[in-house]
Amino acid sequence: MTIFRERDFIKRLREIVPPGNSDLIAGIGDDTAIISCSNERDLLVTCDLMAEGVHFSLDYFNAADIGWRALAANLSDIASMGGRPLYFTMSIAVPSHLKSGSFLDEFLNGLLQCATEYNVKLIGGDTSSSKAGLFIDIAMIGETEKGRALRRSGAKPGDFIYILGNPGRAEAGLRLFQVGWRFKENRVFSPAGKNPDSEQLATISAIMLAHIHPEPCVRAGRMLSDKRIPSAMIDTSDGISTDLFHICEESVVGADLDYSAFDESELNVVREVLPELDTYHCIVNGGEDYSLLFTASEQNRERIEELRKIDFYPEPRLIGKITDRAGIMEIKLPDGKIRKLKTGGWEHI
Amino acid sequence: MTIFRERDFIKRLREIVPPGNSDLIAGIGDDTAIISCSNERDLLVTCDLMAEGVHFSLDYFNAADIGWRALAANLSDIASMGGRPLYFTMSIAVPSHLKSGSFLDEFLNGLLQCATEYNVKLIGGDTSSSKAGLFIDIAMIGETEKGRALRRSGAKPGDFIYILGNPGRAEAGLRLFQVGWRFKENRVFSPAGKNPDSEQLATISAIMLAHIHPEPCVRAGRMLSDKRIPSAMIDTSDGISTDLFHICEESVVGADLDYSAFDESELNVVREVLPELDTYHCIVNGGEDYSLLFTASEQNRERIEELRKIDFYPEPRLIGKITDRAGIMEIKLPDGKIRKLKTGGWEHI
Repeated sequence: MTIFRERDFIKRLREIVPPGNSDLIAGIGDDTAIISCSNERDLLVTCDLMAEGVHFSLDYFNAADIGWRALAANLSDIASMGGRPLYFTMSIAVPSHLKSGSFLDEFLNGLLQCATEYNVKLIGGDTSSSKAGLFIDIAMIGETEKGRALRRSGAKPGDFIYILGNPGRAEAGLRLFQVGWRFKENRVFSPAGKNPDSEQLATISAIMLAHIHPEPCVRAGRMLSDKRIPSAMIDTSDGISTDLFHICEESVVGADLDYSAFDESELNVVREVLPELDTYHCIVNGGEDYSLLFTASEQNRERIEELRKIDFYPEPRLIGKITDRAGIMEIKLPDGKIRKLKTGGWEHI
Repeated sequence: MTIFRERDFIKRLREIVPPGNSDLIAGIGDDTAIISCSNERDLLVTCDLMAEGVHFSLDYFNAADIGWRALAANLSDIASMGGRPLYFTMSIAVPSHLKSGSFLDEFLNGLLQCATEYNVKLIGGDTSSSKAGLFIDIAMIGETEKGRALRRSGAKPGDFIYILGNPGRAEAGLRLFQVGWRFKENRVFSPAGKNPDSEQLATISAIMLAHIHPEPCVRAGRMLSDKRIPSAMIDTSDGISTDLFHICEESVVGADLDYSAFDESELNVVREVLPELDTYHCIVNGGEDYSLLFTASEQNRERIEELRKIDFYPEPRLIGKITDRAGIMEIKLPDGKIRKLKTGGWEHI
């Protein structure tokens, strides 16, 4: 009896369907496929599925959030290649109880708000009833300058590892929702017995938004690509430990992380109202931040520091170094101890 | 209170997202979108969703059939533009009870058998659990020579209307499955009390296969495109009445059909074992044949007749004529009476 594991399934797909067409530069195994389009540009193709009860709950996602987030996940894949998103198709299966009322209108509003903000165009779709939950699948096409897609496979021993922004926020947001916190009409609703002060509320609100309304790093990805800084890049949809491992696998390298490099301050505010929050787990394994994780050679270190002086957002954070120990990831804890880092990010199984 | 209707939803999408990029030749509203790729070629993009309990039942679809059919639906969209299919992405949400055992392996076998036969390459995907049924969404990219995609909008009054092959077979197959006929390991299993003879069995078997194992008309679509025969083309995934209406809408024309032009002989064999089969409904409204419906000017009539002499399959059948009465479709019945033809094909609602 075989058990369905995402990795095994994808592994079998890769084995069975080898790249064998001169137009196809990369197939399965990166954030997007890469197709040669003309002498000037390559196309990037990706897809992302959102299933009710697996990727989101209608208990705390409103229709507009779902529309936004379905598109954001795809935009993040294009961003991770340093690409410019262009077009998308959407397939949606809708259960009866969501067909009436304003749900679908609000869903479209959220989707199109995100499409407008990131300048991508809906070019096709398919609709269906669903005998069960809501399912949304979006396929997106983007582009890069010829030969310039930033892949997982370019990391070299000695490269520094960077992440944009503070990881773990979307995971902490999820935990808040799971214990009854709600975010509606731009307001935080706390569960009975919790009375956060206004400073706590500001952080909690931002953390909750990180989960339901992620901002994919398309602009940052483009700027990094323009400046030819990253040697490898991936988005952190599955969590640092899993996504860094993808880079290690594809680049045949290892990685040493330094936990002290991360900023726990926001998560510590959440812990004041949610003492059981595991900040280490959020930062290292928490998925769906849709930030970018990239590697860059030592000579780019100063150029990355200089990004802080211009309008570059989110801020890059140096969190470790690539090693030559293929497939081995380690993390140095604040007490100086070094631990094996295992992949423990999101797997939607 | 609004009720979810596929047409209304798509209409809103079209209104909100106007084509506004010079690369985008056609967005929502044809079998595929058309994107300008280079000076030599255009890309075609489409997606098709299959939801358990809506598009298929696990009672009579085995895993390999589902894999085949999911891909065939997309291939048919590319075929309807006269395109060459190239690449696809697949998102799949799998309920727990299908994760163990051989289901997913067999699903992949069917998918890849179809991919091999039609020479398309899987370039990406997403996998998820499903809290409910099985969902598969495939997005496909194809190509045509520059400016040569065959659209729904090119039909002119006076053009003849053709269909490839005999419509209604997939619908008749569905009816057989619904009353207990089964097709397993290349054998027909009849319900208790039904004992078809070997001649009947051969037809019944072909009709059942038309439903679970459709053969998209990619080669025929390419040949028609090469010979520049069609003025407009669409695939008959939703049934003639619905798909012809799409051509009428997009071309701002009407259509007169002659029911005597269709061949009912196979469906009449099915009626011998399933007397309640409505052959008219199967032919005119039955969906999922994945055949091609096209229009062509009178001067192409002889060239189409000549296709019969070469290796062109399925055979083109002249079934009517395009008129200038925009949006009006009529059908002449065998008794000479003329009736309004209303869209009554498949809507997966």
